[in-house]
Amino acid sequence: MATRTARTAWTGSLADGSGEVTLASSGVGTFAVSFPKRAADDADGTTSPEELIAAALTSCYAMQFSALLGQAGGNPTSLDVTAEVDLAPDPAGGFHIPGIRLSVTGSADGLDDADFRRIAQEAKATCPVSKALAGTTITLV
Amino acid sequence: MATRTARTAWTGSLADGSGEVTLASSGVGTFAVSFPKRAADDADGTTSPEELIAAALTSCYAMQFSALLGQAGGNPTSLDVTAEVDLAPDPAGGFHIPGIRLSVTGSADGLDDADFRRIAQEAKATCPVSKALAGTTITLV
Repeated sequence: MATRTARTAWTGSLADGSGEVTLASSGVGTFAVSFPKRAADDADGTTSPEELIAAALTSCYAMQFSALLGQAGGNPTSLDVTAEVDLAPDPAGGFHIPGIRLSVTGSADGLDDADFRRIAQEAKATCPVSKALAGTTITLV
Repeated sequence: MATRTARTAWTGSLADGSGEVTLASSGVGTFAVSFPKRAADDADGTTSPEELIAAALTSCYAMQFSALLGQAGGNPTSLDVTAEVDLAPDPAGGFHIPGIRLSVTGSADGLDDADFRRIAQEAKATCPVSKALAGTTITLV
């Protein structure tokens, strides 16, 4: 149905090297990445795989939630979706993404708060990016 | 160890609405998203969840590959990683990401071609984003 491409050019070792990630299909940008900045508390103006996962998930979730609200007879007016993605040592070796916290605020005319909460959970279970991210735990907070 | 955040603000329905996705931790950008452009053959200058997944995977994979090449005694000089991410109707309902094609070219002083190929597969299995994407099939082409 649709295929999208991105690319990373990397030079050097993990600790001392650096890369550039390009959003190739859209052409909207090329951004620096590095492992020391990825693993630091502060992103220091540098994107990372975890931030890009958060962006993929929030954009997918917002679309899925608006679709389900509409199917339930609601008229979604605005949604604000945030994802926090953790990187941590993996007990099995190396690193992993143990969990993602997803939060959403918004409103939809024609649906009450209980409907909104139920559909928010349903969107988490059915958005394509959520389904692909089966190797981590996404919590709707 | 590290947490990264992104956010999507969405207005309106799936078909007629639109959103803006912000790489919040780094602050490197805010980009428009829409479902009709996401599902079209041509990205038409607009990013999408699939392109962002491709960006997350290629940047993570490049780091993991450079780490494993170094551990194997190689000196990674340059790596070029591309990912193509598909969106398609899900037989179980809605849409899903059935597969991702990952490709890598590059060189590492001190290792032969067979080592390079073996470590490329190992990097696919162990990069944190690959592990999180357990709900889709990543093929190293």
